Amino acid sequence: MNNNLHFRRIAIIGIGLIGSSIARVIRRERISDHIVVCAKSEESRLRSLELGIADSVTEDPREAVKDADLIFLCTPLLTYVEIATLIAPFIDKHAILTDVGSVKGSVIRDLSTILDSDTLFVPAHPVAGTEKSGPDSGFETLFNDRWCIITPCKNSNKESIKTISNFWNSAGSNIEVMDPHHHDLILAVTSHLPHLIAYNIVGTADDLENITNSDVIKFSAGGFRDFTRIAASDPVMWRDIFLSNRDAVIEMLSRFNSDLLKLQNAVSDGDGSMLEKLFSRTRKIRKDILDAGQAKKKSD
Amino acid sequence: MNNNLHFRRIAIIGIGLIGSSIARVIRRERISDHIVVCAKSEESRLRSLELGIADSVTEDPREAVKDADLIFLCTPLLTYVEIATLIAPFIDKHAILTDVGSVKGSVIRDLSTILDSDTLFVPAHPVAGTEKSGPDSGFETLFNDRWCIITPCKNSNKESIKTISNFWNSAGSNIEVMDPHHHDLILAVTSHLPHLIAYNIVGTADDLENITNSDVIKFSAGGFRDFTRIAASDPVMWRDIFLSNRDAVIEMLSRFNSDLLKLQNAVSDGDGSMLEKLFSRTRKIRKDILDAGQAKKKSD
Repeated sequence: MNNNLHFRRIAIIGIGLIGSSIARVIRRERISDHIVVCAKSEESRLRSLELGIADSVTEDPREAVKDADLIFLCTPLLTYVEIATLIAPFIDKHAILTDVGSVKGSVIRDLSTILDSDTLFVPAHPVAGTEKSGPDSGFETLFNDRWCIITPCKNSNKESIKTISNFWNSAGSNIEVMDPHHHDLILAVTSHLPHLIAYNIVGTADDLENITNSDVIKFSAGGFRDFTRIAASDPVMWRDIFLSNRDAVIEMLSRFNSDLLKLQNAVSDGDGSMLEKLFSRTRKIRKDILDAGQAKKKSD
Repeated sequence: MNNNLHFRRIAIIGIGLIGSSIARVIRRERISDHIVVCAKSEESRLRSLELGIADSVTEDPREAVKDADLIFLCTPLLTYVEIATLIAPFIDKHAILTDVGSVKGSVIRDLSTILDSDTLFVPAHPVAGTEKSGPDSGFETLFNDRWCIITPCKNSNKESIKTISNFWNSAGSNIEVMDPHHHDLILAVTSHLPHLIAYNIVGTADDLENITNSDVIKFSAGGFRDFTRIAASDPVMWRDIFLSNRDAVIEMLSRFNSDLLKLQNAVSDGDGSMLEKLFSRTRKIRKDILDAGQAKKKSD
């Protein structure tokens, strides 16, 4: 069900996990006659052609957006300003620019000063991913049953929001429209803080001098392994997320720290009833998530 | 391959995820003529009979161990002293007592003062589990390709260590023999600290006043979901683990905290190169774990 979506020429700037999954969705749904992929690395450009997820490729974002009626920005967040500055004069006045970034407030703030006031821009964030990177890692079902959050800005109009919603419906996602600031707070707790914590604990384990890495790796089945998967996510993408959502991440981190101090005291003091109470409460949250269908019982 | 293991009567005290998985292995490998299951709850006793993983059941640990030649202690750690005190006079002098607890130092310290000096006791820890509890949650392949750590004490002799090793080999596990203190340090970092952190972050998210639980649950795919699985683990079992391995957990937590402070400063200061460097290092550790075969690429 592609809601009669059709585009003459779709430009995908950045062909990593998300960009290449979008290209696969476009192919499956026959949404466009032509996909032009823009990537800095020659390897990614060649691979996109080989995989059949690009009809043409270019290194130059300006060339990519020429004549495109839909443009996906799928590069790490800190590249947005440079790319937007380059492409702004070349974006067709009927084209829609959208992105997939994990932070929305800073993106809207930055791009609103760069884009023409009549350029259509619909900021979006598909909440989906794996720890893999690159054009080979994408797959067409990545967005199935996931949420895509759309955070309209002054460059969005009703029709362009509808078009982008339709695209994400075609990709199998559910749509939620919300304020960018609220998005950034929610994602800080559901995604950014968990990644920061996972990166940190894996780093801590790597630094221990009385326990070898091979011991840690061998006995990782007890919980650590799940953290390593999260901590294997793309380093540049995540560096940019933390720097772009600094305030919300720091706010969540400080709450996390103050809770952790209480927990640490409970362990030190042998306060078993505090521990059991917390652990029973968190178990219930998992049940709620399973009930909400966000986690499949078997694989998760 | 059950290495010609055979027992007249095996007692399993505690029939949760681990105990009931052991019972299923015993059935599959035909290691015993009789399994007696000891459980406090009537529901678990009846269910064990229904599931066919018990030939007889009892509420009384003393009755369970009478005439048993192999005894598995599979209850939460803080019940050990009470149960060991009850059963010590009734353990056959040729029987082997073993356990599956996630902490070994405190167990050995406590039980060595309770057990007769000639009672055979082989402390063991199968490093495997899920977030589920109860006799229905067990399965016979739980220990496949996992490590079982044996930490001999003065009540273990060569032959009893060999017997318990053979049992865990039959269950599909690899065996590592090590010092209990070293075990407790390794597990503090690979299992106990990750659980504490996961419990904490899920609790923090639950407490936020400007973000609803339903928002957190809806958008949990971004990383949080993995933490909720860990934080759904059995509350009493985990309360007891933290209280039994207090010193090692607090040591690892203090290292984690000092690393987290550095990471927090890097985010605050916008130190992108520090972030990228750490994230690249942790990604490599995941690769090492995959290479070591501890994580299956597909499901993990």
